[in-house]
Amino acid sequence: MLEGINHIGIAVKNLDEAIKAYAALGARQEGEVHRAADMNAAMLAVGESKLELMEPAGTGGVIGRFLESRGEGVHHICIQVDDIVAALASLKAQGVRIVDEKPRQGLEGLVAFIHPKSLNGVLVELVQVPKG
Amino acid sequence: MLEGINHIGIAVKNLDEAIKAYAALGARQEGEVHRAADMNAAMLAVGESKLELMEPAGTGGVIGRFLESRGEGVHHICIQVDDIVAALASLKAQGVRIVDEKPRQGLEGLVAFIHPKSLNGVLVELVQVPKG
Repeated sequence: MLEGINHIGIAVKNLDEAIKAYAALGARQEGEVHRAADMNAAMLAVGESKLELMEPAGTGGVIGRFLESRGEGVHHICIQVDDIVAALASLKAQGVRIVDEKPRQGLEGLVAFIHPKSLNGVLVELVQVPKG
Repeated sequence: MLEGINHIGIAVKNLDEAIKAYAALGARQEGEVHRAADMNAAMLAVGESKLELMEPAGTGGVIGRFLESRGEGVHHICIQVDDIVAALASLKAQGVRIVDEKPRQGLEGLVAFIHPKSLNGVLVELVQVPKG
């Protein structure tokens, strides 16, 4: 079952400037910037959903390559499900192309990406968030 | 105040095929297809939020031009606010570029678009939905 839009991931060139731009809209940062080898990311609250702003770090990684080919903009959308294993099994049975055959641990719960070829050019991340 | 993500607008080449693709994900169509001169659109429920699938019609319009330049994918995100007039005034005072100086009537309430140059390449629609 789809529980809602967990967040929208946005690729940006400069995280600090992007956080300021979205603050003008009223979207406030939640928690600290998450720093990884090839990406820094900040979560901004929009009601019950979030925007995830991501800038490339280090050698650039996925977000660096996205910026080079597409420029700044929406990188992925993340849909929250109640049972990610069941969701992936159902998608596979229907012939949908999956990036992650098995869910893996993300920051907030188990995650898996669906191939954008199966969803009209949209990279969709599924997340199952622990309850309680 | 930001109330949440109302919907994510996705440009697609063929609306019927896209509705089937997103049905595999569990996103079910709400209401009828809305047909306008240059666009047909369907709303799919994702928890409390929605996906808006849009295909070009007639001479193509905005969605036709988007598909030509960018291909299929996320076209805009729509954030629900409690007071769109106050939100626009606040954005203008902060130097944010607005597409619609005054809110106009949309399908679900008053809407206005913010220029993607001010929000890292993301076209953001604001909507104020009538209460009660």
